[in-house]
Amino acid sequence: MSENLDKILQANAAYAAEFGDKANLAMPPARGFAVLTCMDARLDPAKFAGLAEGDAHVIRNAGGRASDDAIRSLVISHKLLGTQEFFIVHHTDCGMETFTDDIMRGLLRQSLDTATIDENGWRDTGAGPGTTEGDQVAWLTFTDLAQSVRDDVLRVKTSPMVPDDLPVRGFIYDCKSGRLEEVV
Amino acid sequence: MSENLDKILQANAAYAAEFGDKANLAMPPARGFAVLTCMDARLDPAKFAGLAEGDAHVIRNAGGRASDDAIRSLVISHKLLGTQEFFIVHHTDCGMETFTDDIMRGLLRQSLDTATIDENGWRDTGAGPGTTEGDQVAWLTFTDLAQSVRDDVLRVKTSPMVPDDLPVRGFIYDCKSGRLEEVV
Repeated sequence: MSENLDKILQANAAYAAEFGDKANLAMPPARGFAVLTCMDARLDPAKFAGLAEGDAHVIRNAGGRASDDAIRSLVISHKLLGTQEFFIVHHTDCGMETFTDDIMRGLLRQSLDTATIDENGWRDTGAGPGTTEGDQVAWLTFTDLAQSVRDDVLRVKTSPMVPDDLPVRGFIYDCKSGRLEEVV
Repeated sequence: MSENLDKILQANAAYAAEFGDKANLAMPPARGFAVLTCMDARLDPAKFAGLAEGDAHVIRNAGGRASDDAIRSLVISHKLLGTQEFFIVHHTDCGMETFTDDIMRGLLRQSLDTATIDENGWRDTGAGPGTTEGDQVAWLTFTDLAQSVRDDVLRVKTSPMVPDDLPVRGFIYDCKSGRLEEVV
């Protein structure tokens, strides 16, 4: 058993012991919306947006990007589980602004170990072997945070599987203040 | 302004007002792991696994599936941000067990409106037009919950971009009890 697993299971036992009437929650989100945001460890969407268990779908990936898989999830959310509004939340100081496809592909070609970053940029100190598999991946990095939000709102809004009149709103979460700012 | 937006911004203002030293959190997850789980509204991974802001990456999609996009996120998590352990958590009563690719494609061909489900299965009462775009999507449904966890753990473990020795553990979260059960 790992230390991480041990702590997760301890916390989970405490949570389950106080589970109460959450056992009766229904599958469709009670508040009828979905949030797409970044996997970043500093973000807790339930806390920063005030969500209780049962309220809303939460979709997260690196960057909070409107990837094909995020759109798969959003379409399931609306078409099968009744959500009628989407919120896309990117954030300041996002890791996705620190690299490019070329950088990630180069790092993965060197090794699979964790790379380091300093004022000179990313550096791979791993022992190898690496892989060329990353060459096939669009890593969905961005350089302009507000534009990345606008791009992703547009991508969701113009998906042929999303109704034209379904509201899709875009935000930036500020990691220094905890505040949401509406972009579009 | 929508009612949802209004409530989100109210909750966010209260959160930001008590933000405190969370402003100093670093980008790399402090506890060095990533969780991949379902977007389901009933799941709050921070609560059920005991995560504070800054602790761990959280990746979520419909089903908690190890999609290409989830693997993109996990590889960024490990390669650039130092996580050394992954936890995959599916759950009981998952919407992904209630349909198939054929059902979803048929529903989307009829309309983009929310469908309904009863003891006779899914039914589309929307006005149309629909779309054939869903025919191109692998919706990543499953019929055997424990097997879906084993499949996704294996898919991540065998990704050429994930080190062979990085632990990937699989769990089922029970929506009736709040408890995590280890599968693999």
